Order: sequence, then C-alpha cells, then structure tokens
Amino acid sequence: MDKVVLAYSGGLDTSYCVKYLINELKLEVHSVLVNTGGFTKEELAAVEKKAYEMGVTSHENKDILEKYYDKAIKYMVYGNVLKNNTYPLSVSAERVFQSIEVVKYAKSVGAKYIAHGSTGAGNDQVRFDMIFQTIAPEIEIITPIRDLKLSRQTEIDYLKSHGVDMNWEKSKYSINKGIWGTSVGGVETLKSQKALPSEAYPSQLKREDEEEVTLTFDKGQLVAFNGVKDTPVNNILKLEEIASAFAIGRDIHVGDTIVGIKGRVGFEAAAATVIIKAHHLLEKHTLSKAQQITKEGLGTTYGTLFHDGQYLEPLMRNIEKFLEDSQKTVSGDVYVTLRPYHFIVTGIDSKYDLMASGFADYGEENNAWSSQDAKGFIKIYGMQNKIFYHVNKDLLEA
Amino acid sequence: MDKVVLAYSGGLDTSYCVKYLINELKLEVHSVLVNTGGFTKEELAAVEKKAYEMGVTSHENKDILEKYYDKAIKYMVYGNVLKNNTYPLSVSAERVFQSIEVVKYAKSVGAKYIAHGSTGAGNDQVRFDMIFQTIAPEIEIITPIRDLKLSRQTEIDYLKSHGVDMNWEKSKYSINKGIWGTSVGGVETLKSQKALPSEAYPSQLKREDEEEVTLTFDKGQLVAFNGVKDTPVNNILKLEEIASAFAIGRDIHVGDTIVGIKGRVGFEAAAATVIIKAHHLLEKHTLSKAQQITKEGLGTTYGTLFHDGQYLEPLMRNIEKFLEDSQKTVSGDVYVTLRPYHFIVTGIDSKYDLMASGFADYGEENNAWSSQDAKGFIKIYGMQNKIFYHVNKDLLEA
Amino acid sequence: MDKVVLAYSGGLDTSYCVKYLINELKLEVHSVLVNTGGFTKEELAAVEKKAYEMGVTSHENKDILEKYYDKAIKYMVYGNVLKNNTYPLSVSAERVFQSIEVVKYAKSVGAKYIAHGSTGAGNDQVRFDMIFQTIAPEIEIITPIRDLKLSRQTEIDYLKSHGVDMNWEKSKYSINKGIWGTSVGGVETLKSQKALPSEAYPSQLKREDEEEVTLTFDKGQLVAFNGVKDTPVNNILKLEEIASAFAIGRDIHVGDTIVGIKGRVGFEAAAATVIIKAHHLLEKHTLSKAQQITKEGLGTTYGTLFHDGQYLEPLMRNIEKFLEDSQKTVSGDVYVTLRPYHFIVTGIDSKYDLMASGFADYGEENNAWSSQDAKGFIKIYGMQNKIFYHVNKDLLEA
Amino acid sequence: MDKVVLAYSGGLDTSYCVKYLINELKLEVHSVLVNTGGFTKEELAAVEKKAYEMGVTSHENKDILEKYYDKAIKYMVYGNVLKNNTYPLSVSAERVFQSIEVVKYAKSVGAKYIAHGSTGAGNDQVRFDMIFQTIAPEIEIITPIRDLKLSRQTEIDYLKSHGVDMNWEKSKYSINKGIWGTSVGGVETLKSQKALPSEAYPSQLKREDEEEVTLTFDKGQLVAFNGVKDTPVNNILKLEEIASAFAIGRDIHVGDTIVGIKGRVGFEAAAATVIIKAHHLLEKHTLSKAQQITKEGLGTTYGTLFHDGQYLEPLMRNIEKFLEDSQKTVSGDVYVTLRPYHFIVTGIDSKYDLMASGFADYGEENNAWSSQDAKGFIKIYGMQNKIFYHVNKDLLEA
Repeated sequence: MDKVVLAYSGGLDTSYCVKYLINELKLEVHSVLVNTGGFTKEELAAVEKKAYEMGVTSHENKDILEKYYDKAIKYMVYGNVLKNNTYPLSVSAERVFQSIEVVKYAKSVGAKYIAHGSTGAGNDQVRFDMIFQTIAPEIEIITPIRDLKLSRQTEIDYLKSHGVDMNWEKSKYSINKGIWGTSVGGVETLKSQKALPSEAYPSQLKREDEEEVTLTFDKGQLVAFNGVKDTPVNNILKLEEIASAFAIGRDIHVGDTIVGIKGRVGFEAAAATVIIKAHHLLEKHTLSKAQQITKEGLGTTYGTLFHDGQYLEPLMRNIEKFLEDSQKTVSGDVYVTLRPYHFIVTGIDSKYDLMASGFADYGEENNAWSSQDAKGFIKIYGMQNKIFYHVNKDLLEA
Repeated sequence: MDKVVLAYSGGLDTSYCVKYLINELKLEVHSVLVNTGGFTKEELAAVEKKAYEMGVTSHENKDILEKYYDKAIKYMVYGNVLKNNTYPLSVSAERVFQSIEVVKYAKSVGAKYIAHGSTGAGNDQVRFDMIFQTIAPEIEIITPIRDLKLSRQTEIDYLKSHGVDMNWEKSKYSINKGIWGTSVGGVETLKSQKALPSEAYPSQLKREDEEEVTLTFDKGQLVAFNGVKDTPVNNILKLEEIASAFAIGRDIHVGDTIVGIKGRVGFEAAAATVIIKAHHLLEKHTLSKAQQITKEGLGTTYGTLFHDGQYLEPLMRNIEKFLEDSQKTVSGDVYVTLRPYHFIVTGIDSKYDLMASGFADYGEENNAWSSQDAKGFIKIYGMQNKIFYHVNKDLLEA
Repeated sequence: MDKVVLAYSGGLDTSYCVKYLINELKLEVHSVLVNTGGFTKEELAAVEKKAYEMGVTSHENKDILEKYYDKAIKYMVYGNVLKNNTYPLSVSAERVFQSIEVVKYAKSVGAKYIAHGSTGAGNDQVRFDMIFQTIAPEIEIITPIRDLKLSRQTEIDYLKSHGVDMNWEKSKYSINKGIWGTSVGGVETLKSQKALPSEAYPSQLKREDEEEVTLTFDKGQLVAFNGVKDTPVNNILKLEEIASAFAIGRDIHVGDTIVGIKGRVGFEAAAATVIIKAHHLLEKHTLSKAQQITKEGLGTTYGTLFHDGQYLEPLMRNIEKFLEDSQKTVSGDVYVTLRPYHFIVTGIDSKYDLMASGFADYGEENNAWSSQDAKGFIKIYGMQNKIFYHVNKDLLEA
Repeated sequence: MDKVVLAYSGGLDTSYCVKYLINELKLEVHSVLVNTGGFTKEELAAVEKKAYEMGVTSHENKDILEKYYDKAIKYMVYGNVLKNNTYPLSVSAERVFQSIEVVKYAKSVGAKYIAHGSTGAGNDQVRFDMIFQTIAPEIEIITPIRDLKLSRQTEIDYLKSHGVDMNWEKSKYSINKGIWGTSVGGVETLKSQKALPSEAYPSQLKREDEEEVTLTFDKGQLVAFNGVKDTPVNNILKLEEIASAFAIGRDIHVGDTIVGIKGRVGFEAAAATVIIKAHHLLEKHTLSKAQQITKEGLGTTYGTLFHDGQYLEPLMRNIEKFLEDSQKTVSGDVYVTLRPYHFIVTGIDSKYDLMASGFADYGEENNAWSSQDAKGFIKIYGMQNKIFYHVNKDLLEA
C-alpha cells in the first residue's frame, strides 16, 4: 500500500482527509502535526489520540519552535517585519515552516504522496503546494478539500458513515495560534466595516494597572527579560504571558493575498508587537540613518516574500545576511510600559547609543563644530537646489 | 537705513535679535510671524504688541494655514508620512513653510537682510538658511544667536540695558505647536532612557470614556468629520479637539538630524496620527498591492527630504504628482474609536473597496477560479524556485 | 452564428486558427491585425488578402502607431526603460497594446469570443489573456494553438484538407518587428553560449563611415531630428533608418519570463537604443541627483510591470504622472556619433543644463563657497560616521 | 619638530606642499604615495626620488592593490557598480583607499598633522577629510592648496625661491590612472557639448581585428582568464592589456559631485567595463528575478555612497554581506568578443545556468506545466487587475 503523509490538525477537514485517503484512495496514512508554539502538550496528545482513532498508521508531533525562531522569527525581528505596517507574520510564516517539516518527513518515510487540507481559495494552499513541489518535486500532492469542495455537513456525514461520530461544532471564529501571534477570523472580518468584538480574542483583558518591563537585546536578539537571561524563545513566552494580560497587540490586518484578492483578519500578538517596537527603537539609537532607510526597504521585501510563501526564494537568504550584519550594534536594554490595550516604549540604555555619544548633542551648543562650520555646511548642502532654481527660475513661482 | 526682515516668535532669542539688529547693526527691523496653526488670535496680538514694544518698524502676522495644508499636509496624508514610522512631520514641515513665507515677505518689502534666531546646533538653521538662499540668493542672512552663542542671562541683561525688562522665565519644556502636531523637548528627551511625564504634554487627558468618530475621505482628503462636510483644515481642527481630550497621539521621536547627530523629541499629534492611520487603512482596501508597496517607498523618501529641509528639491514635486494620482480611488468613510491614550481604526466603507467587490472572497469558495486554476497558478508561480533548487540542490539543505 | 474576433498575423498558427474556428467551432471569424510599426502597407494588404482567402467574414488592419507612442513609448523614454539594463521593451509593450486594441474591437462588434494564437509556454499568452479578461471579462477566450499543441505538419495538413495549400516555410529565426525594436529568436538563443550571427539580424551593416546626428528633446520627447521638427514617431522612424544602417543597437536579452523560466532573445533596436541613451545623458545634465536616483527605481518598476503584462496595473498610471512631471526641464539638443556597430553620445546643449549654470564649476575655484565653507561642510557631512566610530571603535579595525 | 604625513603624488601641488610644510609651518614631512595600480615601478621610484629632492624626511610607497581589490573592486563587481549606469568608480574608490592608508600610516608614525593637496572645489577633499577625521579625529588636517588658492605660477615661483627648479609643464588633460580605470579631464569636459578627442585617452587604438576571450568567474570573482587560473588582480591586468588595445571602455561620466554641482569627466576602463558587463550577464543566467531586482537597487546605493566618500558608512558593510551571499551561484565562463571601440558579451556556460536547467524551456512546449495550468495561472495572476476594474470601471476608459 502506498504511503501518504498528511498535515493533520485534528479539525474536521483534515479528519475527513484521513478517512478519505484510507477508504477512497486506499493509502496508508501517516499524519503529522508541526507545532510552532500554538499547541500545549495536552492538545498535542489529544490530536495524536484523535489521529489514531481516525485510523492513521502513524502519527508524529514535531516541535520546531527553536528552529522556527532561529530561521524565521529572528530575522523578522531584525527586519522589524510588520506586514502593511501592522501585522507580525504569524500564520504565514508558520505555515511555511510547517510545510517544510511535513515534506521533509514525507521524504524520510518514503511517502509517494503528501496531503493537506487547504481549500482552493486562500494563501495556505499556495504555501503548502509550493514548498512541497520545490523540496520534493517527486512526491505527488493530494488535496481532497480543495478538489471536492464539500460542505461541512457532507464531511460530517461521511465521517459518520465510516464510524466516526464526534462533535464537530463550528466555532464562531476561526483561530490559529502560534508563538508569533494568533489570528482570529470570522463574522466581522468577512466585511470591511467592523472591528472584532473583544470576546472574539482568545486573550482577555485581565489587568487594569500598568507594568514596566525591560527587554534586553544582544545583536538584535532578545536575550533577557526583566534582567533574567534566557533563550529568546523563552523570553518571548514570558513576555507574551505578561503582555497578553493587558490585551496588547490586537489589530486587524487588511492585506493582499497571493491569489490577488483582499483579505481581512484579526490578530493578537502581544509579545511580537512589543518586541518589534522595542527593537525598532533600539535601532533608531544605534544604527546610522542610511542603515535604517535601506533596512526598512529590505524588511518590507522580506516580509512580503515570506507572506507570499516565497521563503525559499534565494533572495531571502541574501537579505538575511544583510539583516544579521546590521545587528552588530543593536544591543542594550529597552524599557516598555504595559497598559490596558496599549503600551509605551519609554526609552533605551545602550553602550552603542549614538545619541549619548558625548560627541555632540542635538539642539545644544557643542564642540563638534562651530557656527562657521554650520554655515559652510548649509551653503554646500543646499548648493544643488540653488543651482537648480538659478537655472529654472520659473519653477520656483509655481 | 537698510531693512532686515526678522522671523519673530516673541521669545527671548528673537526679541534679543530685534534689539541687536537695531542697535548694533543699525537696521530697520520688520518682524514677521508665520502662523501654521500654533497661535490663537490672542497670542498673535500679544506677539505683535511685543514686537512693537521691542522697537520694530513694522510687524506682520501671516496666516498660511490653508496654504500649508494644500502644499504640505495634504501630501503628507497621501503619503502616510510618519518619520521613522512614528512622527508626523510637524515642526520640520512648518519651519519650511515659515521660511518660504518669510523670504517672500523679505523680497516684497525690498529687505537687504533677513534674520532668524536659530542656533548653530540643530535642524532649523538648515531649513531657514537653505530656503532663504534658494529663493533669494541676493538677500544676506543674519543669525545673531548662532554667531554670538550668548547665554540666556547675557541676552536678558542686554535687553534690560536697552530698556526691556520682561519676565523671560524659561519653561521646563520647550514646546512648538502647529496644526499637525506639538513637539515637546527637554529634561527626559535630552537622554535616551525615559519617556516624558504626562504633565509635560500640553493636552491633558480629559476623557476616560470612548467615542466613535467617522472620517470621510474624498480622493485622499478629509472632506467630512462625523458626517458634516467642511474644509480639510476645519475637519482636522475638529478632530484634534475631540481626540486630544483622549491624550491620543503621544510618542517620542528618535531621529537623525540633518547635521548628523541623533535627536529625541516628544510630541503629541492627536489629529495627525488618527488621520494618517485612518487614511492608510482606507488605502489598504482601495489600492492595489503594487501601488501600496511603491507608495510606501516614495512616502518615506518624501518625508525624509521634507524633514531634511529639502522641500524645494525638484523630486518633491514629482513625488507629489505620483501621490495625487494614487488617490483617485481613496474615498470613503473610516470608523475610528477613540479611547484614553489610544485609538482603534475599526473599519471602512467605500464604494471603491476592492475587498467587497463581489468578485471573489478571501478564504471562501468562489466563482472567480476553480481548484484546477489554483493548482495551475501555484505550479507556475513556484516555477522559478523549483528550477533554482533543481539546479542548486545543495542550497536546499542549508 | 456567434462571432469570434481573432488576433491575426498571417502566419501558420493564426491561419490554422481561422479554419479551426470556422470549421470545428462553427464561428463567424473577424480577424484583426494591430500594427505597431512592424508592417508596411504592402504587408498589411497581403495579410488582409490572406485573411479573406482563409475565409474570414471581415478583416481589419488597425494602425495604432501614434497611440502606442503616446501611451507607451513616450513613458519608456521618460523612464529610460531598458529591461535588465539592456533591452528596450519592444515585443512585450507591443503585445499589450495589440491586446487592448483587439479586445476593444471585439467589444465593438459584439463578439462572444476572442481568439489568439499563442502557445502555452511563453509570455504572450499571459499578456493576451490578462488584458482580454480585464477589459472584457464577459468575452470568452479561445486558444486553439495552446490547447491542441499541434505540430507544424499537422497544422499544414489540416489547412490543406480545407483547401488551403500555401507555402508555410519555417524561417530559421523567428522575427518580430515593431517601431521600438525587432526581436530575433532561434538556434543560438535557445542555448546560453552563443551570440546570433550577423546574418540573423534583419538590418545589415551598410555603412562603414561615421555620422553625427542631433536629437532635440522637449520635455523628454524627441521633437526634432537633425534640426528638423517633426512628430516624435516620425523622428524615431528617421533615426531608425540612418542608425540601422550602422547595425547599431544589437544585443541579446536574457530575462525572466512571467511564467518563471529564463528566456533569451536577440534584438536590434537602433533608434530605441540611441534615443534612450541620448535622453538619459540629457537627464544627467538637467535633473537633480535625487530625481535621478528615484526615477531609476521607478523606471525599473515600470519596465518590469510592463514586460510582465501588467500595463493595466493602476500603479502604472501613478508612475506615468511622476515620470511626466520629471521631464519639465529635460529639453535640449543631444549630439550622437553613429559608427559601425556602436555609437557615442558626445554631449548636450540645453538652457536647463545644471552644469553650465554659471553658478559654480566643478574642480575649479569658484565663488559659490570658500575653502572655509568646504571644511565646515565636510566636518558636518561626516559627522555621523565620526560619531559611529567614536562609539564603535572596534568596528573600524575590521 | 612635529611630524606631518603628506599624501604625495609628485605633482606641482603636492610638491609645493612639501616646501610649504617645511618652510612655513616648520614641520617634519613624511610623504607617502599609495598605489592602487596607477604607477609602474619606475614611476614609483621617480616619485620617491623627487620627494627626497623636495626635502622630505621620509617617503613611503604603499602598494595596496590586493587589499583594494579585496575590499573594494570585488564588491563593485558583485554589485555591477556603474555610476549613473556608465562609470566604473575608479578615482572615487581609489581616493578612499588612499585616504585610509595615509591616515593609518600617519597614526603609525605618530604624526600630529596630516596633509593633502586637494582644492576646495571638488570631491577629493571630502573623501580625504572625512576618512582622516573619522579614523583619526585627533590628527589635524592641513590643506595648503585649498586654503591658499595659489596660481600655478605662484607655486612654481615659490618652489624656485626654495631651490626647486623643475619643469612643471601643465598637460592639456589631467589624467588619473588606477587598476579600475583612468579618468581624463580637461578642455572638452569643462563644457557639456563635446566628447574628448581620441588622442586625449592614454590608450590608443592598436588593433583593428577582433578577439574572443573567456572570463571565468567563481562566486562572482574573476578566477581565470582565457582558461588560465590566476589571482583576480592579475586577471584584471591581463584583460586590461588586451582590451585596452581595442580602445574599449571609453565614455564620459556626467555626475553629481558631493558638493552639489555637476561634473563631467572622461574615462577609459577597458577591463572594468568588460568584467562588469560579463559578470552581469552571468547573473542574468544564475540569479532569480527577485535577486536581480533587489541587487540592482543595493548596487546603486553602494556605488553612490562609495562615490560620495561614505565608504565607512556602516551600511556599506551590511550591503557587502548581501552582495557576497548573492554570488553563491555566480560561477561559470563568459565569452566576450573584443572589437575596435566596443565589445560583445556573446554568452555564458555555467552549471548554475537556470536557463539550461532541463526543467522547462522558454517558448517551447514543455512538461513543466500544461495549457490548463497556464490558463489557471493567468486567471489568478490577473485577478487583482480584474477586481480593480470591476470596481473602477471608469478608470478603464481613460
């Protein structure tokens, strides 16, 4: 019997896939769930149990949190990546790394097929198919949900007819959780007018006071939280726990999908949002103006390609080298005040701070140059404009 | 007696300039104050009175709010201009327009000299000198404060010795107010570590509730507020009044000055911040992906040049044409919820909304394409990566 | 009988389409040829004759040279558009304008179908389909060549069986001629190693001497050639006639197709190459540094989108506004020396020349600033680096 | 006696400086000449002899060709750096490396002063001063030529009065030679209209035939010439010898100086021009489309900053990392035909060639996708435009 590896989440669609692959396509199903921080141990155990109940030959839970940090989150912090200036790439980046892990697993077990449960309407199918085809062009992709376009009821009936009688209650909002953020879609996000109601978000406001926290970066990485050194992943988790109690980092992302239509999705990403804003402030103090401007453009390119499933595009590796090198001086403490629904990045302390250099101070008289120097500077700094309007007098009137 | 036109604010430095220009340089002083929304009628009258008390031959208050909107704010909204992703160009843009008005005035009265009160340490001297030299290369610039580097006490003593005995109390924070924001500098902003205390901001929190407001844009301009049509300038003023009561739009800008050093300044800009974020959301719904990406880069360029005093750089005019054309479809209502210290842009309603097009819906099955189409799309969309790694197999392992 | 409009070239593939559409699909065929400068009157008459012989109900020759100049070539000159720094967009830009004309014609005659003869392997199908679907989503597209993948012999046999017995000799090179260049593909271009032999190019070297010509631009448009005013289209044609005798403007373009694979094609584009280089030199004299840098990026974007069939992307219109505005001062004479196989842009004469401004001269002592000014300028211009390495001494050693 | 290190070239200006520094400023002069490929052994010996004749305490000739290649030329090749699309940075890049070497030498000998012979009108003073001030802020800069603005005759007379009676004939053209190109300024380049006459160029046309050469790149570096492995520096020298006999690589650069005015300079750079064009073609075959587009922008930024003396700007190091990483697959042979005054890059052969991948061929039917796939691709690739004009029908008419 030929083997198929299925990206399995425990939901209705991928459960349908298990039965369909076994019964209709006569395949040996090996399910795999790749965890990028969205599942607790208990949830993972429950998914595994369910997989075996569905009849898979084997099930694997792959925890790739450290790898996901090291190959993705790290660079998204370096690049201050917020899609459309708003959205930390949570689902999109995760999906890419889940795809890579699934296809590598499929190769390792000698699978002839690989299956996922995405529909034909969104971004995820693109990410899955592209990564699968690129890494293992020899493995054929099976996508029952995309091909058959069944209603939920049809899927439930089919499962029932194959002895699976579970409660597949559809929740009002579709939620996707990972370490770098949780997306929330449904009802309001299907139209353009309204925000999500507070209760749609998994993390509810639990604190009405305020708390000051300290984020310590070393070469762009979050190496300590509140003065305690730990791995960046652990520091993210610690910050998330505290910041999410303030219901921080909620917003709605309106963006262009890979398939050319506009999409809207809510999200909460307390740690990601705070870290990126804190990191960005530290960069304003420690990088040159030219570094910041060029980095901004490359960060946008990096985020756009990543979102669009183009993580394997070779340009991504080139940009990562740039970003990594740019972080040589991005070290120091950043102070953040957390408050209900919002936060303030209050300041930084860094031995690389170009503002506190003792060389020259803004707005104050200083010894770095004289007023005569300043006049000479301005005279020549403005030279091109002066020549331009000397030649083009009429354009000055306009 | 030769004429000098002085950019006069009523403060100690420019008051010193009046006396200095009259007594030491034997010039006929014509003072001018250019109002970009920071002065009330009463304040303007007070400055005028003070100017005459100082001994100016004439004083002019120029109100350029409409022109400033039409030639600057409008484009900063089109371009979603926030310097370093944070700061609506308030002081910097104002200073440019004040310079232009002052030098045009100087030309109109046949002045031989033009004077300003900036020091030699900051950005403003660059903006003043450059604009003056470009528009009127024949008029000589006099800058007593920059050249003499006097202490406050020396200035006060000099004024006293010339019969001016006023109270020149130095406030703790230096505040610069305009329609597009108020900057607040001093104490904490001289170092990198701390935020400004709440009391440093002119607008104090007055409301603890929340309020929903509607901003109506027509081709990128704010043509109505809460359903009432008015000029963009009036709509900005109305929004500012309501939003500033929520202490919205406060932040600290850390940026690179034109003279190469880092500077830090607090600001509050309730209306500017809300308008730019609302406008940006409307664009996410009504512009294509390519438009947004290219616009973002040009907006950054526009803001950087503007901040750096390069408003007359001919590229600025070219970018304005791009920005204006990009706004053809940026029309509709934007809904914003104001809350203490923060706000939420909840959604939009626009007949140009590309999301609500009835053509295809994100994440839902749709009639715009089949699953077969989607597979074909992905196959070719991923073609280059597939070929790349077919040729460069070893790079996939890395 | 339902109407189909067919983009007809007179070649084997589209001739096959005529018979196929009539006989197999029972459609009334209205053929149309859109001329962008590649066909002489005689050739047009011959194509028309052939179309009727094939059995079309009507045939139209549309001459859109002026429109093509005004909506495409003009902007490609403004933007100095050379794909991959080499290739004036000839075929790609033409195909877009042919598509637009064909679909507008189809709408005007109430066609239910529209047909083209492109295969499924290249760029042209993308340009045709996209433009057709965007402008007339209600008209269905028929592509017999793409769908049936017939051999030349099968097509010839089919035509013979329907009474068409012509000589369909396959030339060694596939040639596509238009006003903005002629592409030459085949044999050598199918591999990466070799240049096209000289005889593959339609224009052979006819002159071994040299000739100086003068191109006069007004706001970026070629308004006179050798001192004689004429329309830009006529000036291009006149220059082409002279320059092509020198076998100028030949090269090979290696580029990325829209479908993700690399393609290689020879071309000759004497007038286009000379005009773009001449125009570019004039810009170096008349635009500011900032204008040139930003223009370069936008020109690349414009060319890439245009090549990729995205002419209708709304960003294209925004960029056109930028480009047009940037040409305000791009007026003057440019001198070019034509020689066998190459040319030299020797210089320019323009009243907008910023070099000959009389304001300051490069490398010479001048009155625009003093050595003291220069020292002040440099001191501050280098300030950020000085601070950076004052803080980061270790990075200087590296 | 305090030490001064002088950047010495053997010309009139720097010879004047030696005498001036000794006699007027009573300094101990240590002259240094930094060779970046422009001087033969004989010329170096002659300069050294002359320096001692002038009275220097010591003279050093520093050969930094290998270092200059490794830290500058290499990256300019990676980035295909041609300023304003024309000019290989020869003088500008050299001057930066000469400055670095001079100031390091000054530090090593404990000099209190450092001197150069630039005027106050051009770019070189900026490069010298900036690099000196950044690397050794404690060393004071002396610039007699800039400060005193003497005529040639005054300098000659001064030297004579100090016992130096040499022939300081002024050549018609000022020539600056280095491994990466030779600049030629004077007469025609002072105005905008004319090209340099052929005799102004140091390398005269010596061959009227043609020659095919092979350039072998390994990860972007020229590791072999005509099949013979050697160091990149030696390969450049070999190519230069052959190519310069064809008078290849001549052009005129019109650019914006750092001091805001336009400058015009002729140059010949046979090897540099051929290498960059050959390298660029190899990249078109081996890099992805996205890599090429982003690299182009970064290459322009790199070249602009380098030209403007900003080599020490930290962004430069970040871009170098990007560029280096982008070269992983840029290996293979490039074939070039040299001809009188011009050359043709005929083709490439590389195992990294993405065109000859055997995966899919342009314009031919292939197995990589079906016509059905192509239709699906186009349908979705064009989706956004379709939606845009579905919503904005009126914009289609325009």
